[in-house]
Amino acid sequence: MPVYADPTDGLVVPVKLLLTWTAGLVESWGAPPDIAADVAEVLVASDARGIASHGTARLPNYLALIDAGVMDPAARPRRVGGRPALLHWDGMNGWGHHAGKVAVDAASEASRELGMAASVVRGSNHFGIAGWYALRVAAQGRIGIALSNTSPLVAPTRAREPLIGTNPIAIAAPAGRFGAFCLDMATSTIPRGRIEVAARRGELLPVGWAIDAAGRPARDPEAALGGALHPLGGEEATGGHKGYGLSLAVDMLTGVLGGATFGPNIIGLFSTEAPSDLGQTFIVIDPGALGDAGEFERRLEGYLEQLVAAPTVPDAPGRVLIHGEPEAEAERRSAERGVVIDAVHAARLRELGERAGLPFPETEA
Amino acid sequence: MPVYADPTDGLVVPVKLLLTWTAGLVESWGAPPDIAADVAEVLVASDARGIASHGTARLPNYLALIDAGVMDPAARPRRVGGRPALLHWDGMNGWGHHAGKVAVDAASEASRELGMAASVVRGSNHFGIAGWYALRVAAQGRIGIALSNTSPLVAPTRAREPLIGTNPIAIAAPAGRFGAFCLDMATSTIPRGRIEVAARRGELLPVGWAIDAAGRPARDPEAALGGALHPLGGEEATGGHKGYGLSLAVDMLTGVLGGATFGPNIIGLFSTEAPSDLGQTFIVIDPGALGDAGEFERRLEGYLEQLVAAPTVPDAPGRVLIHGEPEAEAERRSAERGVVIDAVHAARLRELGERAGLPFPETEA
Repeated sequence: MPVYADPTDGLVVPVKLLLTWTAGLVESWGAPPDIAADVAEVLVASDARGIASHGTARLPNYLALIDAGVMDPAARPRRVGGRPALLHWDGMNGWGHHAGKVAVDAASEASRELGMAASVVRGSNHFGIAGWYALRVAAQGRIGIALSNTSPLVAPTRAREPLIGTNPIAIAAPAGRFGAFCLDMATSTIPRGRIEVAARRGELLPVGWAIDAAGRPARDPEAALGGALHPLGGEEATGGHKGYGLSLAVDMLTGVLGGATFGPNIIGLFSTEAPSDLGQTFIVIDPGALGDAGEFERRLEGYLEQLVAAPTVPDAPGRVLIHGEPEAEAERRSAERGVVIDAVHAARLRELGERAGLPFPETEA
Repeated sequence: MPVYADPTDGLVVPVKLLLTWTAGLVESWGAPPDIAADVAEVLVASDARGIASHGTARLPNYLALIDAGVMDPAARPRRVGGRPALLHWDGMNGWGHHAGKVAVDAASEASRELGMAASVVRGSNHFGIAGWYALRVAAQGRIGIALSNTSPLVAPTRAREPLIGTNPIAIAAPAGRFGAFCLDMATSTIPRGRIEVAARRGELLPVGWAIDAAGRPARDPEAALGGALHPLGGEEATGGHKGYGLSLAVDMLTGVLGGATFGPNIIGLFSTEAPSDLGQTFIVIDPGALGDAGEFERRLEGYLEQLVAAPTVPDAPGRVLIHGEPEAEAERRSAERGVVIDAVHAARLRELGERAGLPFPETEA
C-alpha cells in the first residue's frame, strides 16, 4: 500500500488556513462561495490525506480550464431525470467536486427511504479523489461507492495503445475503531505519477506496470511514458484482463450509462481543447435497511480485527493494513501539525495567490 | 483471457439432454421440480460456457452436502426484510442457484420502477458462476451485478495465511452485436484450479499467483497449494493490495451486509461440517431510467467496436477481446454440437446416475 511520507523541502500550512485561502482563490475565479467552499474542502482533504497529486497542486490546471473558457466556474449541477433510486444529473460543465457532493448527498438522502440509491452525473470535470465522496457517505453510517471515468492512459489487454482510463473505484463503510474502511483505487496497476517519479529517480520499472509504444513490457520509465499503463493485474498471465474489465465496467457505469463521453473519446487530463464531459456515479447503500446499522458496523469491525491480527509474510513492513488506514493517519498528522507542501507545489500556490491578490499563507516547515 | 479448449478424451452430450438429466437427478435428491430445473439451468450453462469447474462436475459435492444433512435440497428462499430498493433474503440453506435466480429476478423487477435495486441473500450455498445471474439481467436489457463471498483461499497483502475468499464479481450489460459485455472474475489473480493443473503438469508458477506456507512467493505448485493465493495484482509492488481490497469489498457487500458468515469464518468449499451460510448480492440498474435503453446499448456497442479495432501488442494471440466473448463462443459451440465432458467428469456423472437409477445419457465424442 502507498506510504505517505511528508516532503522534506516544503512548507507547513494549517488545514484551516489552507481551506480558507483555497476557497477564496476559487471564489476569485468566479465560483459562488458555497461552490468554492466545496472545491476547497475536497482539494485540501486530498492534501491532508497525503495524496498531493489530486489536491491544491492541481489548482493551476483548473484555472487553465477556466481561462480557456472550457469549464464554467459558476455552473450548478442540474437534475435531468431518472427514477427514485437512480438520479440523473448534468454537471453543466462546472466543478466536479461540487457536482459530486450534490449528487452523492442526493443519493444518500434517497437511500434512507429506499435502502439504496445512485446518482449518475454527466457533463462533469475532474472531481479530485473518489474516496472523499465514499467517505462522506461512510461518515453518515452508510456504504458509499464513487466511480469516475478518466482520460485514456491504460492499454486494454492485447492492445498497444492507451484507450481506457485509470477509472477509479472507491468504496467506504463505517468500521468501528478503524474509523472507516476506504478502498480508493485506480484500476491500473499504478498511477502514471509513479512512473514519472521513477523517471526522475532513474529507476527501472517492475514488469506489469506499463508497456512501451511498440507494446512491449516497459522497464525503462521514459519508454513507459511514451507507451501505456497496464490495467491492474499487469500482463495477461497475471490477470491483467481483469483490471481491463474493471476499468471498462467503471466507464460503463459512469460515462456510457450517464451519456457523458467515454473511453478513447475522453480528451487528455486537464486538456484545454474542449470541455472534459466526464461521467461520475455515486452509489449509496443503507445497512440500516437490513436491520440495525450498528450491527453491520460491528460485524465489519470484527472482520477487520481478524485481518490485522494475522501472522505476516517474512518481509512485511508491518501488520496487515486496512484500506484507508495510511490516509487516515496522514490526515491526523495534518490536523495536528498542518499540511506539508513540497517546494514545487508551494511555488505554484504562491504564484496563483499573487495573480489573485491573495497572498499564500506561509509557515516554514 | 481464458481459452476454452474442449477436452479430447470425453463425451458429447446435447445441451437439452444434459439439462433434463441434471434436473431429474437433482429432483431425485429431494428438490421440487422448479428448483431442480433452476439448478440444472445454471450448472449446464456453466458447462456449455466452458467453465467445467462450476458446472455438473460439482454435482457429487452438492450431493455430499445433502447426504450429510447440512444443505436442505427442498428449501425456498424467504424475504426477511429490507426496503423497496434493497431486498433482504434468507436462502434458508437451500440451493444457491435457485435462491440467486429468485433474488436477482426480484431486484430486476424492482429496478423497473425505481431505476436501481438490489437483493442481498444470507444463508445461501455455492451458486455456480456469478456471470449467469449478471447475464440474466443483461438479457432483460439492464445492467446486472452479481457478487458472492467464498471460502478463504486468498492471503490479504502482507498476511501469510488464506483469510479471504476468491470472492467473484460479475458485471454484464447488453452490447448490441457483441451480445453482452460480461466480466466474471475472481478477485484473486487466478483460481486455485489453475494451480492444480500446473501441479499435474509439473509447471512452474509465475510470481504473483501464490505464496507458500511460509509466506514466500511460490513458484512450485505443490508449495502454493499448501500456502495461499495472491489477490488480483499479485505482490504489493504490483498492486496486490487493490485485489485484496476488492475481495474485502465483495465480502462487505455480501456476507457482512446481509448477516451471513464472512472472511476467515467461512468453512471450506463444499465442506460437510456445517451449513455454508454464504452471502450473495445482486444489483440491477435499468439504463432505461436515464433515457432510451437502446441508446445505452448503442453507446456501449460503439465503445467495444473502438476497442476491438485497436492495434495489438507484438505477441498478441488475436485481437482485443471483450469480456464474455470466449464464453459466448463456447456456448455457441455447445449449442450446435453438444457439451463436451472430460473422462473424469463423465465418470462422476455416470456414478451419480447409477445411484439414482437415472442412467447418464451418453454419446461418443
